[in-house]
Amino acid sequence: MKKLNIGQVGFGTVGQGIYKVIANAKNAHASIRKICVAHLDKDRGAEFDSAKPLLTDRIDDLFEDPEINLIVEVIDDAEASYEIVTRALKKGIPVVSGNKIMIANHLPELIELQNKYGAALLYDASSCGSIPVIRNLEEYYDNDLLLEVKGILNGSSNYILSRVFDHNEDYGDALQRAIDLGFAESDPTFDIEGFDSLFKLIIITKHALGVYVRPEDVFIYGISKISNFDIKWAREKRVKIKLVAQVVKISDKAFTMFVMPEFVDKSKYIYSVDDEYNGVVIRGEGYDRQFMFGKGAGSLPTASSILSDIMAIRRDYRYEYKKMHYIDRPEYTTDVSLKVYVRFKETRIPELLPFEKITESYSSEQENYVIGHIKLSELIKHRQTLDAKDVFIINIPQFFIDRD
Amino acid sequence: MKKLNIGQVGFGTVGQGIYKVIANAKNAHASIRKICVAHLDKDRGAEFDSAKPLLTDRIDDLFEDPEINLIVEVIDDAEASYEIVTRALKKGIPVVSGNKIMIANHLPELIELQNKYGAALLYDASSCGSIPVIRNLEEYYDNDLLLEVKGILNGSSNYILSRVFDHNEDYGDALQRAIDLGFAESDPTFDIEGFDSLFKLIIITKHALGVYVRPEDVFIYGISKISNFDIKWAREKRVKIKLVAQVVKISDKAFTMFVMPEFVDKSKYIYSVDDEYNGVVIRGEGYDRQFMFGKGAGSLPTASSILSDIMAIRRDYRYEYKKMHYIDRPEYTTDVSLKVYVRFKETRIPELLPFEKITESYSSEQENYVIGHIKLSELIKHRQTLDAKDVFIINIPQFFIDRD
Repeated sequence: MKKLNIGQVGFGTVGQGIYKVIANAKNAHASIRKICVAHLDKDRGAEFDSAKPLLTDRIDDLFEDPEINLIVEVIDDAEASYEIVTRALKKGIPVVSGNKIMIANHLPELIELQNKYGAALLYDASSCGSIPVIRNLEEYYDNDLLLEVKGILNGSSNYILSRVFDHNEDYGDALQRAIDLGFAESDPTFDIEGFDSLFKLIIITKHALGVYVRPEDVFIYGISKISNFDIKWAREKRVKIKLVAQVVKISDKAFTMFVMPEFVDKSKYIYSVDDEYNGVVIRGEGYDRQFMFGKGAGSLPTASSILSDIMAIRRDYRYEYKKMHYIDRPEYTTDVSLKVYVRFKETRIPELLPFEKITESYSSEQENYVIGHIKLSELIKHRQTLDAKDVFIINIPQFFIDRD
Repeated sequence: MKKLNIGQVGFGTVGQGIYKVIANAKNAHASIRKICVAHLDKDRGAEFDSAKPLLTDRIDDLFEDPEINLIVEVIDDAEASYEIVTRALKKGIPVVSGNKIMIANHLPELIELQNKYGAALLYDASSCGSIPVIRNLEEYYDNDLLLEVKGILNGSSNYILSRVFDHNEDYGDALQRAIDLGFAESDPTFDIEGFDSLFKLIIITKHALGVYVRPEDVFIYGISKISNFDIKWAREKRVKIKLVAQVVKISDKAFTMFVMPEFVDKSKYIYSVDDEYNGVVIRGEGYDRQFMFGKGAGSLPTASSILSDIMAIRRDYRYEYKKMHYIDRPEYTTDVSLKVYVRFKETRIPELLPFEKITESYSSEQENYVIGHIKLSELIKHRQTLDAKDVFIINIPQFFIDRD
């Protein structure tokens, strides 16, 4: 098997993790030949002195080096990532990338480029860090039995909710702590509003069911407007509120997907996914539920996932997107009823939302809520109502209905 | 890709599961062409009437059929399994098998046959049913980072211990319930004495570290002699007793492995693996701990795993046993100190066991125990002492030492 000479793009948290992991992996038969960075002079500490001779700030240095036979791209900038990854693929150079935004937005084109130019693009690190979700969906659950993939895909929001539920912290304090500890960005919107989970879910869905859904067509709802009332309500019912992403086959012909806060009871595997961890449940006919749990982000966990992809490139592995060619692929639909809890201040809110049925309603001087059945398509249509101040919506999954 | 015409051997619980699963997997492009059974006339119920024309009691019917291009072997008899699997491989026909005893005992030869005759043998179902342990160790954790694989690999013994710890049942009652429910065989020795876990561990170790260890060289200790005293002791310490199989790198050069009852505290992932479930923790540098959890046995879970292997055969996948060719493969050693709890009646027992250090000892009119450090090699040497009536040994893993 060939030796891999890596042109690495990005030397931040994950990039430095890759540098460390590769140094320890003597059987990888891979070495980093050049590292493209934005700022050559940035102080990276004595630990990375040995990397200095590899650094360049010219991406062309990587593409002009005939020895480089693999690009590993771990930068944050999705547009730059797109330029680099497509350029590499068009030159027939395989790529390992961790950029979920770029991949989720351009997946159809990236698949075309792989087919046209013959080079592979692997990105297991893009979804749930060290948990091998993509590879298992592609290779192991590559059959008709798969029914559902559901999980906690974002560590930052989960960390915050864990602090709230397990440590009785105030939401604001928990958010600040997450930022201080580096579990959330200083602008945490991407994590707590569900975008990060969404992009991962788009990628997962392609490998789970063979269907690409555009990010803008999927309902997402974040946790930023959660209130003490919601938290108290959940506690009384002995459930937690988690930010859950899911893709679910609702029949042989159709599936739905969304990212929403959800009441999770103790009997569910994801109930015990706490702190910054990720957990994914893969449900299928026959095997019922498989649960995979691990570190979803961070320097070394992500780097170890990148190393798995690097090793796979070495033996010419590629995603075959086999499910794209399945007969009777299910179609994406939002024509599905959810049972939801909607908390609000303005009393006209329930009238603005076309509930099929309201099963509970509560009002007090401080807060009101209703529980009812509503179409996912209506949630999308009435986005503005849901986005209003003092409105918060939480999914009540099926099991919860059964127990009512 | 080719269409698979399966010659199936065995039509018991798992075999019938495969029949059902294949019927539902329209994208498998696989069909069962013949099923070899021991007793043609056995009543299998109306559900399997459609299978009747496929049945034969002559194994030669499968091998003489030129259309059959895959053997799926799911019989209990390890010797017959060996005959069938080797015969198929020698004819260049790929095989999917779930027979852990046969595979664990003959793995080196089975690898040789695959190399010599070019046909693949896949057996993910042999270890932890529906949990894709083998495939992930072979493909995803195929690097130098892997440090440890540890888990609950046997559902029957775990079911019994769960009844004891979570439902306060007596061990004998729990065992009887397991037999009644079909979670344990009427002769449960294979499960509760650790043999089932051992064979799975042998297979896992080959794919985890590239090294084959003969089953007879590994220390196993079952749960059949657990007493109410042990259970009470564990409860007081707020830990559970689980039957744990593990392979652990203790340095760059060496690893150890064994199957033993172990005290498991709440902070460990396997603490919450209850009832008949299996759970495996894969630990490595960088990613720390990955946890995989699911149904380890049963008709449909095992059949779904077999289906994954069938689909893999269709695209010419094979285990490459890449780690066999690693430089600096670690060597198996039993020269490693364990901290153990030994409960006994006869007071001379501790003298018979060459402890390096005894850290606690307790005696009463009813029971005595010591906690101390002892070499694994000494446990093997003093098997007879450990096998005596009224002696029981439980591993106290490192974390427990740290907390003492």
